[in-house]
Amino acid sequence: MITTASTPQATQSKLPPADAKARVSQLMRQLQDEICQGLQQLDGVGTFQEDAWERAEGGGGRSRVMRDGAIFEQGGVNFSEVWGSHLPPSILAQRPEASGHKFYATGTSMVLHPRNPYVPTVHLNYRYFEAGPVWWFGGGIDLTPYYPFASDATHFHSTLKATCDAHSTEYYPVFKPWCDEYFYLKHRQEMRGVGGIFFDYQDGQGQLYRGPHPEGAAAVYSTQVGTLEPRSWSELFAFVSDCGRAFLPAYAPIVEQRRFMEYGDRERNFQLYRRGRYVEFNLVYDRGTIFGLQTNGRTESILMSLPPLVRWEYGYKPETDTPEAELYETFLKPQDWVRWTSADM
Amino acid sequence: MITTASTPQATQSKLPPADAKARVSQLMRQLQDEICQGLQQLDGVGTFQEDAWERAEGGGGRSRVMRDGAIFEQGGVNFSEVWGSHLPPSILAQRPEASGHKFYATGTSMVLHPRNPYVPTVHLNYRYFEAGPVWWFGGGIDLTPYYPFASDATHFHSTLKATCDAHSTEYYPVFKPWCDEYFYLKHRQEMRGVGGIFFDYQDGQGQLYRGPHPEGAAAVYSTQVGTLEPRSWSELFAFVSDCGRAFLPAYAPIVEQRRFMEYGDRERNFQLYRRGRYVEFNLVYDRGTIFGLQTNGRTESILMSLPPLVRWEYGYKPETDTPEAELYETFLKPQDWVRWTSADM
Repeated sequence: MITTASTPQATQSKLPPADAKARVSQLMRQLQDEICQGLQQLDGVGTFQEDAWERAEGGGGRSRVMRDGAIFEQGGVNFSEVWGSHLPPSILAQRPEASGHKFYATGTSMVLHPRNPYVPTVHLNYRYFEAGPVWWFGGGIDLTPYYPFASDATHFHSTLKATCDAHSTEYYPVFKPWCDEYFYLKHRQEMRGVGGIFFDYQDGQGQLYRGPHPEGAAAVYSTQVGTLEPRSWSELFAFVSDCGRAFLPAYAPIVEQRRFMEYGDRERNFQLYRRGRYVEFNLVYDRGTIFGLQTNGRTESILMSLPPLVRWEYGYKPETDTPEAELYETFLKPQDWVRWTSADM
Repeated sequence: MITTASTPQATQSKLPPADAKARVSQLMRQLQDEICQGLQQLDGVGTFQEDAWERAEGGGGRSRVMRDGAIFEQGGVNFSEVWGSHLPPSILAQRPEASGHKFYATGTSMVLHPRNPYVPTVHLNYRYFEAGPVWWFGGGIDLTPYYPFASDATHFHSTLKATCDAHSTEYYPVFKPWCDEYFYLKHRQEMRGVGGIFFDYQDGQGQLYRGPHPEGAAAVYSTQVGTLEPRSWSELFAFVSDCGRAFLPAYAPIVEQRRFMEYGDRERNFQLYRRGRYVEFNLVYDRGTIFGLQTNGRTESILMSLPPLVRWEYGYKPETDTPEAELYETFLKPQDWVRWTSADM
């Protein structure tokens, strides 16, 4: 159910406004502030502690961590703004025009690890780059439940789709499968969770750079995705702003629904085990983590996304006809969550 | 205190014997058997459970795991023998002569995670590759203590040095700093533990391919390392055999010394935290892990090295004048453990 975009057209590179960096940097700080405030209200007990830091090569950031909240065992919300003489090779391979140029990057990222296994983990990251002749926005948001509730996935995706649709009906049908592809653990043949939206290298010219296709994706949506319609810098800026502000309405109602559900050792052990996949994804595949480690970022801030307690178990398989098995069979595969009905189960 | 080897000479590629693959494969199986038997005797309670597996692209292996032993919370010893149409890019970059050729690889690897935080974690891996015109041995063994006992590090290194010296007095002075460089977490500016020996791409022609230099290394040994004297295939085979057989005498006495030491939550929490570094190293840097994941290896066997329970803690720093601080200040930096005396503390 992909909407194929119109025929790609050669478009002139659209320049960002003169105050682009300052505007995006301010937006990223605001998003951090608004998200932290919203999460503190939601949790009711935990508060964020801030560490401000500077980077020797240029720039710095504000890392904020909540620990031992009523809901959140650990949550981190980072803002950073860095610059330097050259981008790392992993990015230059995708953006060769940036070679030999200085770069600027700013972004906000967040990972929440709730204590109750019925409350899903959630991740958000939005970022902006400038390097010589090129600039782009990237990021997204995705949900990682431990226990399968289709209504949670549907609420999350419907909220994101509405945000996307307000800017372009092209977006959700492209950024939803892109998210499934990005948060795919190839070595496990599993998606990290139920996804959300993801995009990278959005410079208004509509190019797409997508990842490996997850198992089972072809059954759910077409793999044929064209380019997107050209967009101006301001249009993309407004879109990213709204994406950041969609986080609380997409996530908070799910937390309210699940936070008081009772659980025992079985659910806790499964949660700790599944958290291992989060570690595997972040250390093996995640572009933000690799960018940070390659650019001498602040290690504690980059790895703040890792869960406070994690289990690995050799050869684990869920028992058949259990909620754990349902997670694997249905929720860790691509699904059209917006159109989901109970008949799909 | 590096012995600089003689001037490099152009030497002819020394061919392996016709039965090279069969001989190394048999050695790797024997090492797995001997190590598992020795560890079961040492533990006294835990036994290894074996999974035999096959790889669709060619080859297979035997994974053996011990869980909930008296000493070992989890231990894995793998044997594998795989072949395929081409090596992954990460290896071809180091060995371009192997491009366009089929490959064969066999090896044994082991990681032990003891429950008692006073007993160190240990890792061993020896491997052999053939690909068209090239062949090589690689591997090593290294010790990761959680609490600082200089006598353990000295015993471990002295045993390895004696094994090396029996083959060539060139080996230990080269393979010891190579290990420090290989098991170095650049993003933490820490070594993984007290090291041991490591080498890679040993094809008898004496080339070295070394990693980033850890902080503080220059104070301990020279960074000037020449090439090694040429060696025949049989000499390297005999050396690797003896390295494999040095594991039990290098490690078992340390376990016997520490296994009954009493510990509490503080020591356990520190152990779980430090285990996080093991995860970071294996997923971000380890060649064996990356090779396995890139070649569609058996994920459960590759990631068997990950600890059963792990903690991350944002911004952790050990208190001054504690054993935990001593680990960081002295044991996670390069040291000449063989010559260590109490005056060095």
